[in-house]
Amino acid sequence: MTAPLDLGVHALLGAYRDGTLTVRQTIEEVLKRIAQAGDDKVWISRAPDADLLAQADALDARRGEIGRLPLFGVPFAAKDNLDVAGMVTTAACPGFAYEAKTSAEVVQRLVDAGAIVIGKTNLDQFATGLVGVRSPYGVPRNPFDASYVPGGSSSGSAVAVSSGLVSFSLGTDTAGSGRVPAGFNNIVGLKPTPGLLSNEGMVPACRSLDCTSVFALSCADADAVLAVAAEPHTTPAIGKSFRFGILGTKDAEFFGDAAYATLYAQSIERLKALGGTPVEIDYAPFRDAAQLLYSGPWVAERTAAVGAFMESADDKSGVWPTTQQIVLGGRKYSAVDAFEGQYRLAELKARAFAEMKGLDFLAVPTAGTIYKLSDLEREPVLYNSHLGHYTNFVNFFGLSALAVPAGFRPDGMPFGITLIANANAERALLAFGARWQRAVPLPLGKTTSQLPPPERDPVVVEDRVPVAVVGAHMSGLPLNGQLLALGGRLEKAARTAPVYRFYALPGGPPHRPGLVRVAEGGGEIELEVWSLPAEKIGALLRQIPAPLGLGSVSLADGTSVPGFLCEAHATTAAKDITSLGGWRAYVKTLG
Amino acid sequence: MTAPLDLGVHALLGAYRDGTLTVRQTIEEVLKRIAQAGDDKVWISRAPDADLLAQADALDARRGEIGRLPLFGVPFAAKDNLDVAGMVTTAACPGFAYEAKTSAEVVQRLVDAGAIVIGKTNLDQFATGLVGVRSPYGVPRNPFDASYVPGGSSSGSAVAVSSGLVSFSLGTDTAGSGRVPAGFNNIVGLKPTPGLLSNEGMVPACRSLDCTSVFALSCADADAVLAVAAEPHTTPAIGKSFRFGILGTKDAEFFGDAAYATLYAQSIERLKALGGTPVEIDYAPFRDAAQLLYSGPWVAERTAAVGAFMESADDKSGVWPTTQQIVLGGRKYSAVDAFEGQYRLAELKARAFAEMKGLDFLAVPTAGTIYKLSDLEREPVLYNSHLGHYTNFVNFFGLSALAVPAGFRPDGMPFGITLIANANAERALLAFGARWQRAVPLPLGKTTSQLPPPERDPVVVEDRVPVAVVGAHMSGLPLNGQLLALGGRLEKAARTAPVYRFYALPGGPPHRPGLVRVAEGGGEIELEVWSLPAEKIGALLRQIPAPLGLGSVSLADGTSVPGFLCEAHATTAAKDITSLGGWRAYVKTLG
Repeated sequence: MTAPLDLGVHALLGAYRDGTLTVRQTIEEVLKRIAQAGDDKVWISRAPDADLLAQADALDARRGEIGRLPLFGVPFAAKDNLDVAGMVTTAACPGFAYEAKTSAEVVQRLVDAGAIVIGKTNLDQFATGLVGVRSPYGVPRNPFDASYVPGGSSSGSAVAVSSGLVSFSLGTDTAGSGRVPAGFNNIVGLKPTPGLLSNEGMVPACRSLDCTSVFALSCADADAVLAVAAEPHTTPAIGKSFRFGILGTKDAEFFGDAAYATLYAQSIERLKALGGTPVEIDYAPFRDAAQLLYSGPWVAERTAAVGAFMESADDKSGVWPTTQQIVLGGRKYSAVDAFEGQYRLAELKARAFAEMKGLDFLAVPTAGTIYKLSDLEREPVLYNSHLGHYTNFVNFFGLSALAVPAGFRPDGMPFGITLIANANAERALLAFGARWQRAVPLPLGKTTSQLPPPERDPVVVEDRVPVAVVGAHMSGLPLNGQLLALGGRLEKAARTAPVYRFYALPGGPPHRPGLVRVAEGGGEIELEVWSLPAEKIGALLRQIPAPLGLGSVSLADGTSVPGFLCEAHATTAAKDITSLGGWRAYVKTLG
Repeated sequence: MTAPLDLGVHALLGAYRDGTLTVRQTIEEVLKRIAQAGDDKVWISRAPDADLLAQADALDARRGEIGRLPLFGVPFAAKDNLDVAGMVTTAACPGFAYEAKTSAEVVQRLVDAGAIVIGKTNLDQFATGLVGVRSPYGVPRNPFDASYVPGGSSSGSAVAVSSGLVSFSLGTDTAGSGRVPAGFNNIVGLKPTPGLLSNEGMVPACRSLDCTSVFALSCADADAVLAVAAEPHTTPAIGKSFRFGILGTKDAEFFGDAAYATLYAQSIERLKALGGTPVEIDYAPFRDAAQLLYSGPWVAERTAAVGAFMESADDKSGVWPTTQQIVLGGRKYSAVDAFEGQYRLAELKARAFAEMKGLDFLAVPTAGTIYKLSDLEREPVLYNSHLGHYTNFVNFFGLSALAVPAGFRPDGMPFGITLIANANAERALLAFGARWQRAVPLPLGKTTSQLPPPERDPVVVEDRVPVAVVGAHMSGLPLNGQLLALGGRLEKAARTAPVYRFYALPGGPPHRPGLVRVAEGGGEIELEVWSLPAEKIGALLRQIPAPLGLGSVSLADGTSVPGFLCEAHATTAAKDITSLGGWRAYVKTLG
């Protein structure tokens, strides 16, 4: 008996590259698993099996192009409020259904990269809800315990990944729909910065807040999807030591779920072990903003999106009563309410940003607890609101967020945390999330898949330039503050190649060194390699007086980096300190 | 008989610095002019004369501090929807009046810089209107012809400057209130980027769109005020040659005013003579956005601001009927309307920005025509709307704008154009506006003031770093494209100080030069000084291979600039070409 096929994005791509797997084999396995899953309520519609196999064969015939198809043969699911050309979009409302002529822009980018749409997934109708039970197409089965909600609104997309039916899936996230179901399914949920992924071809929920989102088993897989779905962008990385915001005792709300409270506390300890310093934040502005979304005029955006449809819909349209009540509730708000809400939001945002200042991210529970289907029958609206307690404010504030698995309750139900960072920080969150997933070994979803090899972990492409410093700019010395003020970061200590003479220049303080390459008779000089954001090099250059400048410094390991050099003519009156091997040794001689 | 005192900001500051004028003399002159102006309806309230003279004496006693008080002894007026501590704010509605405990943030900054508040000026009630006739405090007298409207809503502030009663004034601008009255009073009206100047202490009109604005006789004066009112920021300058958007025949609307049409056409010719290339734009998205402001849900922002007050106001409150009708009209819009308006605005903005792409600014008439008071009695709303035809969209799109005088109709009424540019371009607009004012000599307002000396003209502080290049990076040579791609600009040709040896390095193409400073035996080498945006220097440094780098290059004129240098060790195998005096001469020898 062989191990089951690992459907992880990187696992598949690796197998294709090695030639040990064909796309047809993958699709046959996907179809087998879907058949075995039976009546799991994951799908609202599926691409016909024959079409999928034909697509697989077509890709297998293009195997030579695998290098330029970054998602070659990777099967995925799309939430059924995203258009897929030739398939019906329902937004979980049969009466709303229409056949899409073209695919949503994000779907098309993935397909152009070689990915295969397996089908359209179930959701809380019109993406309104965080529970996954508000659909005439049934409740997608939570693979950990079918008596619990799968989370929503992107319920089917999350279950499809967690159950190992597809490699990844697309959801949408307005108030938490791309995070809550990730938490309840033990998978990764990436909610990018609003506007980073196109919303073209999405049935709107709250148009000013909606985001296309990504579910995957690992951060590395989500990153591979993001790389195709979005234009590349740079972002500061989260360093080896970092600061993260946490909820204080007065703000931590678990709705009576002691196990979740314990798991959150454990997660904080794990983040500390990863190099983090926790900082208790005042959660009030975040909580108040979250309130605005469900109890304020933004509901009118839902009315704007589908209110007219709901008002004209008949009994056969399948409009979900709770959803209808919420959507039409937006009619009661005036334009005055809308503008006053926006003023209030601007105030809360300013306060929230002040709380986040200097933090790499906030770490909050993805949800404070998980409910059973029977709970939701009793409290369909209140408990839904509880699930948005830690998610609602994120799109309001234009932030990026990443939900990651963080353990299990004693009864086996998953718990997740969400890392929330500034706009455009998603690549940094994914790179950090990969560190988290390696440090906190957990099953991936409800599958037997393994994390991709470490070399596939996301790397943040930072636009930084290394600068080798040999004198007063080194750590703790008088000019080091110049580097720190420009966002400098110490990368490593090193030595030059043995080709330099090293001088103490006349003048100062500050005393300055001169590093001059020579054709022969050079020595190895100690230095530090710092890095600066590329856009700050100009500001550094302005601060460098003659005879110093920035050139290429050859290191002992054979590489070279930009760094401080000195013009040779200026060393005539200087003291040759090459034999000391470095500036710190020279400073000591000054006593 | 001596020439009348020139109240221009720079004129006053110059006289104070020269010791030929005291602040008391200035304030006495201001009080005399105000008395002579008589019942001009400019002021809603005035600081008591005795207080003003006491402030003047206090400043005269601090003459020694003039260097750190950039608006020392400069008298100004504030529109009466801006708080001044200890004075009553009415927003031109007696029933709304309250005494301000603290000054609006912008007012306070000016006062802290030595400026003196003379009084609070009349306005279209609640800053709702572009005409200047909607006030129970009367119609500020247009100094060019009292039968014409002064323009609004910042009517009193514009007339105060144009009539020479104060050096500058503050207005506010939501839909054009800081520009239309500038046009009708032959003065400069600066409408900064939304958010650049604080709105703290302003009675809101449309809170999401309101901007504090500045009226002055010259762009140099307005720039001096802006420098105090706002945090410093950098912006790309408008170059000697530039591209500007104009209205095509189908879009140019002058409401039957042939003289204004002719003056607009003349202004385009004058901009061409200043180095500009006109580009006809499609005005549709701008016009459609302008429509949204007065005929769409944004009216509800006015309702949010003062609707409750108006509903509870009695007959004695002095609520202006037209204003009341407009403000309470916002009640009819729903939150759905508000959000749908915002979606529509986002679409129009995207189209408008596409039209503006690659342009330094748009040049439009400030208003398409000017009306008489009697016209407004006939058509109080329609003609008001006409005046906003070229102004309404600017704050919607988050742009900066500058209204400048542009000539007179045969009947002596002034015409103005408005330059509209991207966000944060106000300093560039002011610098260009100063060029415009020198090239188009016109009286300043209705005064005998003169333009400040040219050395006071605004200079755009660009964050650029000069880079001296001596080889293949020079104009027309193989690596020049690297500089151009990074936003490089040729600043000047120059020569080094006679202290360098110059080498042709082995290797290439591209062939590279080596400039090495020597203690003796150096020559003068030809070079070009380019400049790059400071944030691009890092990208340049990445492209510079050893043995080259960026250091300080000494020029023949005794200055030094950052530039390309070569490590001395690398010249052993290189060809000394110092005697050729430069790279171009060397390239010629290669044939």
